[in-house]
Amino acid sequence: MVTSIAESTDVLNRLEELETRERLHRLCHDYSHGFDKRDLSTFLAIWHDDAVWVFGPGQEVTGTDGIRGAAEQMWEALAETHHWNANVVVDVDGDGATGVADVHAIVKAADGSWSQVSATYTDVYARRDGVWAIARRDTEIHFQRPLPG
Amino acid sequence: MVTSIAESTDVLNRLEELETRERLHRLCHDYSHGFDKRDLSTFLAIWHDDAVWVFGPGQEVTGTDGIRGAAEQMWEALAETHHWNANVVVDVDGDGATGVADVHAIVKAADGSWSQVSATYTDVYARRDGVWAIARRDTEIHFQRPLPG
Amino acid sequence: MVTSIAESTDVLNRLEELETRERLHRLCHDYSHGFDKRDLSTFLAIWHDDAVWVFGPGQEVTGTDGIRGAAEQMWEALAETHHWNANVVVDVDGDGATGVADVHAIVKAADGSWSQVSATYTDVYARRDGVWAIARRDTEIHFQRPLPG
Repeated sequence: MVTSIAESTDVLNRLEELETRERLHRLCHDYSHGFDKRDLSTFLAIWHDDAVWVFGPGQEVTGTDGIRGAAEQMWEALAETHHWNANVVVDVDGDGATGVADVHAIVKAADGSWSQVSATYTDVYARRDGVWAIARRDTEIHFQRPLPG
Repeated sequence: MVTSIAESTDVLNRLEELETRERLHRLCHDYSHGFDKRDLSTFLAIWHDDAVWVFGPGQEVTGTDGIRGAAEQMWEALAETHHWNANVVVDVDGDGATGVADVHAIVKAADGSWSQVSATYTDVYARRDGVWAIARRDTEIHFQRPLPG
Repeated sequence: MVTSIAESTDVLNRLEELETRERLHRLCHDYSHGFDKRDLSTFLAIWHDDAVWVFGPGQEVTGTDGIRGAAEQMWEALAETHHWNANVVVDVDGDGATGVADVHAIVKAADGSWSQVSATYTDVYARRDGVWAIARRDTEIHFQRPLPG
């Protein structure tokens, strides 16, 4: 008795979905690694060429140049950033996917002052030519509180 | 040469375990999304009808009504909650599973005071009629410290 | 029509990679569970016999005895530790793998003072006799800040 083609196709689809989920978590984590460690190539690799990045209220950039510019501007304004992702959930549907992640961040401004941030990312992912990347990331900031010392 | 039925069964079992692990992580994360974003339907969907939720020392509720009541009471008492799950591990055994997760939380009480919490969740999961949900969640609170300002 | 042996091998390889990734995440999380809950057997089980653990600048121990000694010394010096892993990424290549994880920690020293730490772990994993464990963990500490009260 042998595996039917139907079962085989099902297995391949299920495997692919699991791999996709891993890939999307990786994009989410590489955002933190790329941004915090100021590794521009890792950071840019997570976005599609025409991606939209909303990183705060009314703060929206589009495309690789816009995203690079925004990151570089933040790196000028901030001496250190530390983003810890949590609660990453993704829903895959064919070549598209959505995701939600919460983040706790501690940042040190260029003037030496520290603050603590709680935010939620809402992501749209797309697979194009076999490559998953972020098509759009929205950021909702819940609080930004100063830290003593 | 073809895949034997034995190998095929093994593949299906291994796939199912990986999918189950994803599902249990999702339950854990949806707890935070549901509770913090005060999305009652997401929050209630993670529990079995007769689930037990121990959310603090001597604070135990049972079943959908008990869980809803406790959540709504906390939402009255707290202006904001932010739960960041970490270190989620699960062990699957057939239709049952256990899990442990650590959480860092920052909460704002209704009176405007802030505090920071470290806790560990110990979970029992069960699959009934094909659906995985939490059968019991115990919470051990390690510290709750006031935050300035 | 039946699954070819080539496809079957591919399926098994892909399954194994997914299972390996789960296993490596587990090692990373069991580090926190073992260390924070002072569960020596869980903590020691994540390391190979000859593993290298660099837990701070110039602070390196080797092998099970060295690792146990370092952990026990820290448990003497610290009243409580809370490590929340985030952004865990792993890359698997045959019987070897590498990983990077960020951690946010809050610790209480034996004298009762509290501090907050941001660090990054860079890991080398190896599979020997079928068992994945940490071969080397390096720790880069980004900041350690005192916490009031």
